[in-house]
Formats: sequence, structure tokens, C-alpha cells
Amino acid sequence: MKKFIPKKSVNLSAWYNQIVLAADLADYGSAKGTMIFKPYGYAIWELIQEHMNKLIKAKGVENAYFPLFIPESLLNREKKHFKGFSPELAVVTIGGGKELKERLIVRPTSETIIYQAYSKWVQSYRDLPILINQWCNVVRWEKRTYPFLRTSEFLWQEGHTAHATHAEARAMTKWAMAMYTKTYEEYFAIPGYVGKKSRAETFPGADTSLTYEALMPSGKALQSCTSHDLGQNFSQPFNISFLDQQGKTQFAWQTSWGLSTRSIGGLILVHGDDQGLRLPPELAPVQVIILPIKLDSKILEFCRGLFNVLDQEKIRVKIDERDDERVGYKINKWELKGVPLRLEVGE
Amino acid sequence: MKKFIPKKSVNLSAWYNQIVLAADLADYGSAKGTMIFKPYGYAIWELIQEHMNKLIKAKGVENAYFPLFIPESLLNREKKHFKGFSPELAVVTIGGGKELKERLIVRPTSETIIYQAYSKWVQSYRDLPILINQWCNVVRWEKRTYPFLRTSEFLWQEGHTAHATHAEARAMTKWAMAMYTKTYEEYFAIPGYVGKKSRAETFPGADTSLTYEALMPSGKALQSCTSHDLGQNFSQPFNISFLDQQGKTQFAWQTSWGLSTRSIGGLILVHGDDQGLRLPPELAPVQVIILPIKLDSKILEFCRGLFNVLDQEKIRVKIDERDDERVGYKINKWELKGVPLRLEVGE
Repeated sequence: MKKFIPKKSVNLSAWYNQIVLAADLADYGSAKGTMIFKPYGYAIWELIQEHMNKLIKAKGVENAYFPLFIPESLLNREKKHFKGFSPELAVVTIGGGKELKERLIVRPTSETIIYQAYSKWVQSYRDLPILINQWCNVVRWEKRTYPFLRTSEFLWQEGHTAHATHAEARAMTKWAMAMYTKTYEEYFAIPGYVGKKSRAETFPGADTSLTYEALMPSGKALQSCTSHDLGQNFSQPFNISFLDQQGKTQFAWQTSWGLSTRSIGGLILVHGDDQGLRLPPELAPVQVIILPIKLDSKILEFCRGLFNVLDQEKIRVKIDERDDERVGYKINKWELKGVPLRLEVGE
Repeated sequence: MKKFIPKKSVNLSAWYNQIVLAADLADYGSAKGTMIFKPYGYAIWELIQEHMNKLIKAKGVENAYFPLFIPESLLNREKKHFKGFSPELAVVTIGGGKELKERLIVRPTSETIIYQAYSKWVQSYRDLPILINQWCNVVRWEKRTYPFLRTSEFLWQEGHTAHATHAEARAMTKWAMAMYTKTYEEYFAIPGYVGKKSRAETFPGADTSLTYEALMPSGKALQSCTSHDLGQNFSQPFNISFLDQQGKTQFAWQTSWGLSTRSIGGLILVHGDDQGLRLPPELAPVQVIILPIKLDSKILEFCRGLFNVLDQEKIRVKIDERDDERVGYKINKWELKGVPLRLEVGE
């Protein structure tokens, strides 16, 4: 099967599209620009979630879930934000068989719908900070799509915090970027450059946007996640205000920060080679593949012993016992899938 | 705060709506019929996911993710299924600023979009069974809504399997129902009745639907999850066919099964009482709350020692050190939140 895949060094984008399918990471969806996360690809996302949830919860940020649909008037309330997203919105106009009085936007990001809620929840400085994260799907209508890298629907986490002071909010954006840096360096094994986005590339509605940019084999940088200082750009139109310790009304200072399944696209691009994927151990759904050279009972028994030892150490291990594929094919297959360690067991 | 909540025994539905808000489980969303899962409510869902993922993965079922949007033609392909869902669909008609050529349905359930993919993935009996589950959001337009129990958008898991024989598929629906029974009995602590849905209540497109029905305080049964034997009702219109061991073309036999955030509504209704929620230990985000009667350093030190002992045992424990609430208020608050064990520490 490998021979059908173009070489990474020769045609990067053809290689990318083929490897995603051949390694069983993903498939194309029926609706334009959407993709299916197949189990092997989704398992990488689950590992990312597992690692990041530990870091996020250790900071005291709690997971929650906010609605998919945003009433148009709400999105419209912060003008720069609305303008930034309006070319890529998916809009629900019919619900329960009837034309809706107010159109609903499928969330392209959740600032507006979340901050509408925060305005109800925050009254006094005692209610701050609010530290919330959500894992969800978002939709941005894209003209040209590539699996993982750019799809009309993708998965991500979005952190949304509200603070009593600007200094505290700024510290939060820095914490978020440090958390992403740790994630990229230790789990993705992808070095990067942390910097401030140019004015033109700043998130619509943000004062400043921090980004982790990683160098791709094309020579271009991939925006791998972002952390935004929103200032009071949302707290004013959404009226997220509180009584401070002196009894004075203040507007909250806010941040948002996100990392999406696009990160898996970067992972594929950076580490893959002409033999296929190469997954770093922390994000490999299968860390060790055991390959019996013959399927005879002595060899299989040894393989199972090996499996048990590794499994007890909480290593993600699998035995390939299929009897309808030759060994050479299996070697190729697991190379293609980028499993970090392959143990071939013969006599 | 408790005094504002109606008694469960007097006005069940008023009690329910109030307790959901007062215990900080959820809030109302801005779009009609939607809800916000606040951190305390969402944490219950995360615990349900954690327990169920273990059972699901142990069976060899893998998690994946399929697109949110279903092209209308696809949903239409199984007539009974389409008719069953058509009154409650949310429809996207605009994408990227333009009217869409084909309208997109926001998934009310994913049989059609998943089985379209299965038809590509299945060629030979070697490709079966396919055992896939997804955790996602779905939308069903509802006229009357209650938080958790009936909302236009809700969260769930949906398992979708395809098999070479009907016997195998039927065994799968039974496994799923046994898995749900274990989940309800051991984690929710809610006994129930497993049975077959009447013809009128069978899932649109299924041959038979199994259900776990739990008795609610109203005297009515709550459909708490379902497991469907889909026969070949989808594999025929979607052409999920395979060459069997004799080289003959066959249609696959399929199942689907789901449990949603509605289950949290059942949890609240069954266990709650006039004092508030009562959460079973397995699903309680906080299992033990430590309440220092005075916030002096000796008591706080003792509380922290206690915290460390319990925390090391992986018990979900918290100390309430707020200095702006009186002890009586705190006792009420944690009773309302249904924490299984409260440790009050005085001198």
C-alpha cells in the first residue's frame, strides 16, 4: 500500500492527503468541507484531551458546556468580532419545520454566547475570577479544506476567563500560552515560537493575541493555538460588570484561548516521512505493536506474555494476530501508522 | 437560599427547575430550548463518560467522531427514519454567506451519516464487525423544554455497529443494554426495568428497540437509554454490503444505542429531596466536603491534613474556606448540592 503514497519530499500536499487516509486517521464527510475522525485519528485527540485536561484542571479551570447555537443579535453585539467571522458562518434558519424569527449561528467560537451568561453570573468581585473551558465542535465555512488542517467543522477546547484586573487577565493569557508550550514540547514533540500576532492577524475583538507558531516542512509557520487578551472589548457591550471591594462598578477583564484538531495536522506534517506517520509516544494510540512472524502457538504465547508485561506498565500495546495479511504487509501497515516501537517475534 | 425552593413533595416540576439552577448544575441558554451545562453539572457528565468509556472500550468498541451536518438527501434515504425525525429538525440553509444548494440538517442522531461512511469501509466479511461509538451534541427541536430532561440540544453517546450476522447484531444490542444496566445500577444507583418498546415507540428505522425505564417520583417511567436492532433497514438503502466467506454478497446487520444527558435529569428527580440534590458517590463531582466551623489556623491545618489523606485515596474532596459566607449558609449550600459526605471540623 505504501507504494501508492507520494513521497513527502516530492509532493508534500499529495503526501499529506494520502497519508491521512492510508493511516486510517480520517475520511471525508458527506457535507462539504467536513471530515470524519476515524478511531485511530480520534484516539490522538483523546490523548491530547487527557494531557491538557490535567494541566487545565490543575490551574483551577473547570470544564463546562455552552450551546451550539448563537442568536444572531448576540454575535452582532461586538462589531469587530462579528465582522471578523461573518464571511464564514453557517446559519440555521429553520427549526421544527418553521422559519425562525431570529436566525441562529452555529458557533464559530463562543465568546458571545458565553459572555452573555457571564453577565448574569457576575455581580461582585467575589464572583471573580471565572475560569471555564469547554471541549466542543465549532463551524467555520471554508472554501478550500484539508483534513485536520482546515475543515468546516473542527473540534477544539476554548478557555474563557473573566477577571477583576487587567494584570490578572494578562497573567492568564501567559499561563495559557505556557500550558500550550508544554503541550507542544512534551506531548507533540514540536518546537515552536511564541509571539504576538500582528495587528492584522489579531483575533477579532481582542487587544492582543499570543500564538505558538511551529515551522512546517513547507517552510511556512502553522498557527498552532492562540491566547487572547480581550481587554474589556466584550465585558462592555455584554455588561459583565461587578462591584469591587470599594463598592464601585467595574467592567471585567477577559481572556480566551484555544487549541484545535488542526494541531493533529501539524503533528502529521512535522513528524511524518516517506515511510508514513511517526507519532511521538505520548500521543501514539498504539505505543508498541507486537508482530508475531508466524502465527504458531509457541510464538503467540510468547507475544501474549510480552503483551501482559507491557500492558501492566500502562503502555498502549497491541498484538497483530490477523491471519489474512502477510508479515511484510503488516510491517508496512504499522510503519505507515507511525507506531513508535515494533517488536517482531520469531523463533 | 433553600427556603426559596418549593418542596419536591408539593410541586415536583417547580422543585426540579429551581433545584437545577440553585445547585449550579445548569442555566438557560440564549437560543430557545438550549441549556448551559455549568461546571458542577458538566462534571457529572464527565464522570458518566469516564465510567462508560471503560465499559465501552473493554468491549472493543472504539470512539470516533462524525460530522455535525447531514445533507438532507442522506437523511431522506431511509423513509421511516426521516419521517420520524422531520418535525424536530434544525436546518442550515446558509453557509459562508451563500444560500446552500443542498440544505444541511444538524444531526438529530447519526445513523445516516455514519452508515454512508460504513458503506465505503465495508467490502468483505474481514471488515466486520465495525464497532464505533461517539460522544457528541445532537439537536432536536422541542416545543416544551426542561433542563437536562428535554432540551433542543443535548449531549450523548451513540454506538453504531455493523455485523455479518443478525445473531451477532442482536447479541450486541443485548450487550449494550447490559452495559447501561450496570451503569444505571452501579453508578446512578437507579433501578429500572429493561424491556422492549411498543411498536409505536420503536426508534424510526429500527426493528426492535430495547429500553431501560426508570420510575420517576411523578409515577411515570423515564426512558433512560435505548439499544436498537436495526436489522438491514439501513444497510440496504445505504448499501453496506460485503462478500461473505463463500464469496456471496450480503447486507450487514446493524445496531445503534445511546444514553444522553437526559440521564442527569433522571438522577436529579429520583434522588433529590426537599433539602436539595442527593448525588450517588460514583457521580458526585465532590464526594466529601470539609467544612471548617471557624477559619482559624489550627482548624484549617487539621482540615488540610484531612484533605491530603482523602485526596491521596483519590476521593474527590474539597475544603470550603470562603470567608464571605456563614457556616449555616455553607451547610445549606452543600446540602443543596447533594455532596454525599460533609465533614464539619470544629475545636
